[in-house]
Amino acid sequence: MSDKLNELKNRMAEISDLDFAAAVLGWDRETYMPPGASETRGQVLATLGRLSHEKFTSDEVGKLFDELSGEAKDWDDDSDEARMIKIGKRDYERRTKVPSAMIEERTKISNAANDAWRKARQDDNFSLFEPHLEKVMDFNRRYAELFKPWDHVYDALLEDYEPGMKTVDVQTIFDGIRPTQVALLEAIADQPQVDDSVLHKHYPTAGQIQSGDEVTRMFGFNYDNGRQDAVHHPFMTNLGYGDIRITYRVDEQFLPTYLMAIFHEAGHGLYEMGIPKEKFRTSLYGGTSLAIHESQSRLWENLVGRSRPFWEFYLPKLKKIFPEQVGSISVEDFYNAVNKVEPSMIRVEADEATYNMHIMLRMEIEIGLMEGSMAVKDLPEIWNSRMQSYLGITPANNAEGVLQDVHWSFGGVGYFPTYALGNLVSAQLWEKMAEDMPNRDEQIAKGDFSNILGWLTEKVYQHGRKYDPQELVENITGERINGDAYIRYLQNKFGEIYGL
Amino acid sequence: MSDKLNELKNRMAEISDLDFAAAVLGWDRETYMPPGASETRGQVLATLGRLSHEKFTSDEVGKLFDELSGEAKDWDDDSDEARMIKIGKRDYERRTKVPSAMIEERTKISNAANDAWRKARQDDNFSLFEPHLEKVMDFNRRYAELFKPWDHVYDALLEDYEPGMKTVDVQTIFDGIRPTQVALLEAIADQPQVDDSVLHKHYPTAGQIQSGDEVTRMFGFNYDNGRQDAVHHPFMTNLGYGDIRITYRVDEQFLPTYLMAIFHEAGHGLYEMGIPKEKFRTSLYGGTSLAIHESQSRLWENLVGRSRPFWEFYLPKLKKIFPEQVGSISVEDFYNAVNKVEPSMIRVEADEATYNMHIMLRMEIEIGLMEGSMAVKDLPEIWNSRMQSYLGITPANNAEGVLQDVHWSFGGVGYFPTYALGNLVSAQLWEKMAEDMPNRDEQIAKGDFSNILGWLTEKVYQHGRKYDPQELVENITGERINGDAYIRYLQNKFGEIYGL
Repeated sequence: MSDKLNELKNRMAEISDLDFAAAVLGWDRETYMPPGASETRGQVLATLGRLSHEKFTSDEVGKLFDELSGEAKDWDDDSDEARMIKIGKRDYERRTKVPSAMIEERTKISNAANDAWRKARQDDNFSLFEPHLEKVMDFNRRYAELFKPWDHVYDALLEDYEPGMKTVDVQTIFDGIRPTQVALLEAIADQPQVDDSVLHKHYPTAGQIQSGDEVTRMFGFNYDNGRQDAVHHPFMTNLGYGDIRITYRVDEQFLPTYLMAIFHEAGHGLYEMGIPKEKFRTSLYGGTSLAIHESQSRLWENLVGRSRPFWEFYLPKLKKIFPEQVGSISVEDFYNAVNKVEPSMIRVEADEATYNMHIMLRMEIEIGLMEGSMAVKDLPEIWNSRMQSYLGITPANNAEGVLQDVHWSFGGVGYFPTYALGNLVSAQLWEKMAEDMPNRDEQIAKGDFSNILGWLTEKVYQHGRKYDPQELVENITGERINGDAYIRYLQNKFGEIYGL
Repeated sequence: MSDKLNELKNRMAEISDLDFAAAVLGWDRETYMPPGASETRGQVLATLGRLSHEKFTSDEVGKLFDELSGEAKDWDDDSDEARMIKIGKRDYERRTKVPSAMIEERTKISNAANDAWRKARQDDNFSLFEPHLEKVMDFNRRYAELFKPWDHVYDALLEDYEPGMKTVDVQTIFDGIRPTQVALLEAIADQPQVDDSVLHKHYPTAGQIQSGDEVTRMFGFNYDNGRQDAVHHPFMTNLGYGDIRITYRVDEQFLPTYLMAIFHEAGHGLYEMGIPKEKFRTSLYGGTSLAIHESQSRLWENLVGRSRPFWEFYLPKLKKIFPEQVGSISVEDFYNAVNKVEPSMIRVEADEATYNMHIMLRMEIEIGLMEGSMAVKDLPEIWNSRMQSYLGITPANNAEGVLQDVHWSFGGVGYFPTYALGNLVSAQLWEKMAEDMPNRDEQIAKGDFSNILGWLTEKVYQHGRKYDPQELVENITGERINGDAYIRYLQNKFGEIYGL
């Protein structure tokens, strides 16, 4: 290894260590930190963030990337080292484009916006949030300017979450799936509805955790290298190689709030657990994009966890934990219940058939605001009318409408599309996997998930950030990210459940 | 505030933030971290430690201390700013005296020594630990050389834990109390023994935690700014202003393992909680020495928690939590039980009357090894014979003898005396407090601890590191640290319990 590469690796290792320290402090803040510590914790996190940013954006690091990019021309373009330089240099160039003053400005704007959003949502008073959202959008327009040239102002935002993905690509994909999804929902609405009352019984917390622990272990989540803890808003976080933490919330009156969500977080966790140690403390460590990450959480939650063979296998075990609640239900009725389709106001509670519609609505609004074709003050009306046209329902208030999500208050614009893209990618991978594993359903029905995990590790997890999302999906499936497989999946699954 | 003082404060704040980040990671490692993360965590902690050390020992910081020491000559010597410079400069000078190579060497020696100690203790084979302890002592002799001139080689080690305290002072104190403590133990041994079987009943964990939570809240531990969690070896740690964590271990067959230990850790925590926010992120934040810290843990554990008025107040409440276990016992019998004196092998389980003897033994050995008048290979024999002469018992093996403590394996020599000094100081403060609060017993018997906490906050806690231990004790009591009050306390208390 060249001295320069060694020097760069040492610097990246130090920066990684600061970031992992911040990740531990962030995890603790959401799980166990006493309330009186928030100011202190904010200071320490700000210091760690600043030191990491200063070290990463230093001239010395820039020079190493430049010089190593020259050397790397002679290396195998597909080697980890070559990719490490390429991706690290891109990270460097993006981060050095943002002046420190703007980073501080973003923190200030989003702190104020987040406070206002909480109050606005609580009081159902959009006008409290309106001036802050104006500022968030103004900031994001100026932020996008830093990354010119681009084809569309929104490209600059998307790039932070989904490297290489363009606005027009996402719009084309969404335009392709929208009419079919709307038609499917209309057809489902005309059929007899599914009874999911079994999920609304009383499920004591201890049994739920026992069940989630049992299933995620069988999926392959290794609790020697991870754990699960209670929080208000569940997430997954990587605190360093060998330390993947997933989190959960329990609703004792509705089983899926915990159980399906812990499958989801375990899916995120399995991705991070599957990245090999050689990539740790380098630019290649971590998931390659939010959409690919979400494809993994959705794959384990929905394509595995809401499948018929899974419940053939697992319902008998769940009956041992909750004999009174599910003892007498059939696999078919339980399978239908966990797949009930019903247009609803809240994105995070949406089913597989309606979820993407929530995302399209948000992306249209984000693009409208960034382009200037929509005004912040009109959002409640725009939101409600599109909810009516996409899902046939109208929010009773802004709390279950335009104010429901935290993302904009944190300045996160361009983030939402990755959720829907994740759904689409999960189906693309699932179809391709079926070709390689013709007896996959039988394996699931026996509770054997090892080949699924092995396939995903080989195709996705082991690469970390080595390949960009489009490149990764194309390498695996021969196609770029698109909605065809997901539409086929929805039509097959719900066509059968609802007798279409 | 001068620009230079401002500059120094900013640098100290950044260094503090790195140290508090490390504290969070350290706490997590002992409480929740999955086992697979230990290597990663070690790397991150090493990076944080190195960055903090580099920043603190930088030439720029040294220059600021030098220049500000000049300016400070015009300041009120008792002001926080003047003390901040004085104490920070002393820290700086000590830390810059140690070459980086020696810091790395210490880490290597203690990692190997700790592994060897674990194995040696498990196999009851002192010879496995012997060469490592030789290295630890050799290192400490070279470390002490860095701090010459001194009167005694051990002074240099003591100074790290107990600023300003000299070996001869500690020896004089210990020589003063040794004969009286030995005589007291002999007198107790001749009396009818106390029955503590009530403590050995089955106490389910949940009730123990409920009880510990209830009492520590009444002491004044604020759970909005702290919490308690389970660990193998209990400790207290400060993760930043407003974030004091105490930890515990539960033995369901012996109540004091949890209950008295949580009083102890809460005592440490109350000290840290009582340091005002102005001192946070400066050289004045934290406890001033290990002995003063221990005086606070022992004061709440023993002088409050093992007192008769405390049990007059609290036994009726404990009876509600554990009606079967303690429902029929009298305050007198319970008070006697928690104060049972019995020479035993293990320091951490020792009672108030025997504890100091364990410490004197260790300090004599540390001094003997540092001076070269004892050889490592002879330690088992020296240990056992002194245990016989001080406590009248002989360990059956080295695991309950010379191998019982972790400290030496981590290179910690000079630490042990602070435990005994803490006992002595707790009694000095307690006597002085009684003068200021003649009705203290009645307050305790009513469950009112607010005046005790207020007195300690005013006299000790609010000062943080502003005064060195001897100066602090002298300011409060008019005397330097000495054993008279503790001996009076032991003679009164145990004279009464054992009818001497």
